[in-house]
Amino acid sequence: MKVALIGASGETGGSIANALLESGTFEIISLVRESSLTKPINVELQKKGVTLVPVDLNGPEEALVPVLAGVDVVISAIDAGLLLKQIPLANAAKAAGVRRFIPCSWATVAPPAGVMELRDAKEEVINHIKKIKLPYTIIDVGWWYQISVPRVPSGRLDYAVMMPSDTIIGDGNTLSARTDVRDIGRFVARIIADPRTLNKYVFAYNELWSQNQIYDLLEKLSGEKLERQYESEAQLLDQIASAKKETGPWAKIKVWSLEYRHSWGIRGDNVPEYATYLGYVDAKELYPDLKGISFEDFVKELLDGKGNLPYKNKTPP
Amino acid sequence: MKVALIGASGETGGSIANALLESGTFEIISLVRESSLTKPINVELQKKGVTLVPVDLNGPEEALVPVLAGVDVVISAIDAGLLLKQIPLANAAKAAGVRRFIPCSWATVAPPAGVMELRDAKEEVINHIKKIKLPYTIIDVGWWYQISVPRVPSGRLDYAVMMPSDTIIGDGNTLSARTDVRDIGRFVARIIADPRTLNKYVFAYNELWSQNQIYDLLEKLSGEKLERQYESEAQLLDQIASAKKETGPWAKIKVWSLEYRHSWGIRGDNVPEYATYLGYVDAKELYPDLKGISFEDFVKELLDGKGNLPYKNKTPP
Repeated sequence: MKVALIGASGETGGSIANALLESGTFEIISLVRESSLTKPINVELQKKGVTLVPVDLNGPEEALVPVLAGVDVVISAIDAGLLLKQIPLANAAKAAGVRRFIPCSWATVAPPAGVMELRDAKEEVINHIKKIKLPYTIIDVGWWYQISVPRVPSGRLDYAVMMPSDTIIGDGNTLSARTDVRDIGRFVARIIADPRTLNKYVFAYNELWSQNQIYDLLEKLSGEKLERQYESEAQLLDQIASAKKETGPWAKIKVWSLEYRHSWGIRGDNVPEYATYLGYVDAKELYPDLKGISFEDFVKELLDGKGNLPYKNKTPP
Repeated sequence: MKVALIGASGETGGSIANALLESGTFEIISLVRESSLTKPINVELQKKGVTLVPVDLNGPEEALVPVLAGVDVVISAIDAGLLLKQIPLANAAKAAGVRRFIPCSWATVAPPAGVMELRDAKEEVINHIKKIKLPYTIIDVGWWYQISVPRVPSGRLDYAVMMPSDTIIGDGNTLSARTDVRDIGRFVARIIADPRTLNKYVFAYNELWSQNQIYDLLEKLSGEKLERQYESEAQLLDQIASAKKETGPWAKIKVWSLEYRHSWGIRGDNVPEYATYLGYVDAKELYPDLKGISFEDFVKELLDGKGNLPYKNKTPP
């Protein structure tokens, strides 16, 4: 099976590339900008057996068709700022006869419209895919372990905590599905080889944790006492409203981050019951033997100094 | 089971009201405008056992909540020009604890966005329902038998042919799912009593017929020779473009009619394969014992003078 990957140098794309390489049953090409061919992360993927193919997603759609000829599955983990570039990519995939297109989703379960701008843009891509009748799978993975952990007073987790999640949203009891980024690829390797997931939405997550439960676990494992600062829905909505007025390269990302918090923290969207309601199939039911990393083990790793700062090379889109 | 019906005086709503009454297992209330309480068709429904309840869909949302208290299923067959009035209705249904909301769909299978304006508006309602987490079922029924038949040269079908479908779209070989309006209610009576259809899309149709097959059947059964006038996609797209510039009470309906023809006639959207791709379950698989009226029997009825002109009382919205 030949797989074309977009965004292999990112967090999600990297997880997918690693898992597909490990499984050893996929031929992988990574579509990259001409200018990124020599980026260290791409050179590293190339050494591991990934074929780098230069593409220009701003160029003519027709030029993408020969690139995708013979590709069975396209997996897009494109930068969130470039979601709509997937529309010409999807058209090219259709023309090339690609048998499954996986657009960039890789997120929490959320309503298709009207709650998160980022989700709205993804819906535009999904609707286009459905309009051109391109075979698809939508994969959502919940909220990453890697951005679920607050700092501890001693500062020993600061090295691995990206966006200090130092506030508890609402009463802190809302459950949210969480996944280790490293497990995303392992789910994907199963899903793309599985005819049951064709033209389906799949929810692939590891464990459900509320913020209060996470704070309790951190206190137990670290022996430190964490201060709990609560943030109400009204405060969050105020922040969203003012973030929407900001400009600059990080403004959109700020809005998206806050809207995520509203969706999973207040509305409680990111749970398997809502996924089922929206029509997702549950990867736990499809692959009961696939045991992901437990959140407790992940936190122990972090406390042992073995964590990694996510998005450490992130630049604005 | 208590059912609240919107649009019971229309073609689809009437089919549903009749079937629910026939099954004898439903308590039915029909939500009507105050000014329509005395319309003959409503008085007739009342005599048959339907309770008429006056509502104002333009009034405050909260006033709808007590009306829906104790209602298990809301079925909306609202006028297509009033689709967005279903948003406050859905909010009220959520507040009242309604266990299933069936918004107005009752149409051909089509892409969720970008092909038919009418479908786009329906998607807005569906997305709102999903945002507020209201239990739902979407039911599409294909293209009615009642508007599938062309006139014959002798004129003996003119009494029952509403929009003279006297052109064949494209090459006329595109299959399209077709259903007798009278069967819609029979499907609905099953679907609303079936937990398997909760939070699902259901495609409930009778038979697949291309336009050429219909012309052949008409010729065989009538003994008359039909002229076949073909209309290309380009001609149809031109008509759509110019209809979009028109104003007046019927302008929207003209656009919708033409876009339907493009979707089922050229794109071939209205088929079970595409429904499955979009995530629908097939009512034929759910209810194999439910045998709808055959298209051939329907045409024989028409030729015997036993047909009815659909939408005969239709006024612009």
